[in-house]
Amino acid sequence: MKEKTKKKIMEKTGRLFIVSGPSGAGKSTLCRKAIKHFGNLFFSISYTTREPRPGEVDGRDYRFVHGGRFREMIKGGEFLEYATVHGNLYGTRKKDVSDALGRSYDILLDIDVQGAEKVRKKLHGGVYIFLLPPSMEDCLKRLDKRGDVSSKELKKRLKRAMEEIKKSRLYDYIIINDDINGAFERLKSVITAERLREVRMRGEIKRLFKI
Amino acid sequence: MKEKTKKKIMEKTGRLFIVSGPSGAGKSTLCRKAIKHFGNLFFSISYTTREPRPGEVDGRDYRFVHGGRFREMIKGGEFLEYATVHGNLYGTRKKDVSDALGRSYDILLDIDVQGAEKVRKKLHGGVYIFLLPPSMEDCLKRLDKRGDVSSKELKKRLKRAMEEIKKSRLYDYIIINDDINGAFERLKSVITAERLREVRMRGEIKRLFKI
Repeated sequence: MKEKTKKKIMEKTGRLFIVSGPSGAGKSTLCRKAIKHFGNLFFSISYTTREPRPGEVDGRDYRFVHGGRFREMIKGGEFLEYATVHGNLYGTRKKDVSDALGRSYDILLDIDVQGAEKVRKKLHGGVYIFLLPPSMEDCLKRLDKRGDVSSKELKKRLKRAMEEIKKSRLYDYIIINDDINGAFERLKSVITAERLREVRMRGEIKRLFKI
Repeated sequence: MKEKTKKKIMEKTGRLFIVSGPSGAGKSTLCRKAIKHFGNLFFSISYTTREPRPGEVDGRDYRFVHGGRFREMIKGGEFLEYATVHGNLYGTRKKDVSDALGRSYDILLDIDVQGAEKVRKKLHGGVYIFLLPPSMEDCLKRLDKRGDVSSKELKKRLKRAMEEIKKSRLYDYIIINDDINGAFERLKSVITAERLREVRMRGEIKRLFKI
């Protein structure tokens, strides 16, 4: 029995889903919805040095740490990737990802475009999803709604967003977040479809048809 | 304006979705549901020499033709693929596929495993979906329900189905038809996800962000 269980786990392989895109595209909201919806989808919570925004919960949305602690973690080689975004540090802890993969969980990463590039260089076989606002005007509106940036800073962020959008060509899937429910349906489709890939279903076919 | 429209069409490319699998897996029912659900999804109706089953409509489910006419079409090079399945001829007309692609429609083909192999050799870039019954017992039950075959013939078909299931490794996606609504949701996810592929969204991103 134990042997069988072991084999079953080995046939399955946890898959890495990376949701990225410019700030203000709605990555966090979308990822939170996906985690609630799917079983066997583990959310790797990023570490950040920025202050929590109203409503954000430590350990759910981010792990909020001080700059000193973050730098210690960098020195200790604890990050799979880390990057500075708008003056704050963000990082994905290696152990979070390897633990989940070890349990053959699928993992969802919500990371900025720089971070995604680093992960792409380090890990093979991830599914890269680029989330976009429906227009630059909309992106601006979303950034502004948070009310924590000056207009000069806003301009800078928009410019950065444009540069990031050009990177969308490196991604597997594009989701335009014109409406959160529609975008969520599309993300669900991508995750569902990727789980139906032949290589992931092979074990199941063997089990059902003894071939 | 005309130039713009032309360009837009060129940026889009109709995609070929091939649903295949052993007899009795439920391909026709599933494809019919998909066509009803999706816009811009053209169903290429197969030609066949077999008799219509109760409830089947000529021009909707198949184009029912006599053997003589079918052989004429073969001679005229009219088929993209054709194959003999359980003593009857089935074929996909080239013109049906090229017309739809020309209008940049996505096309759905419901074909047997032999036919799918032929299409794979002739056309590039299709999305291959293998539909499976949840077990061999279930497959047998479905074949038997039609009530038009002897038990000897049933055995032969089951053996053939097993051979075909081994070919599932050549496919992109696997859908197990344990329940038609669940299977339909999965097919919807595959079609939706494939339409979100970066290369298909590139034109839309250019249009929205002028990059």
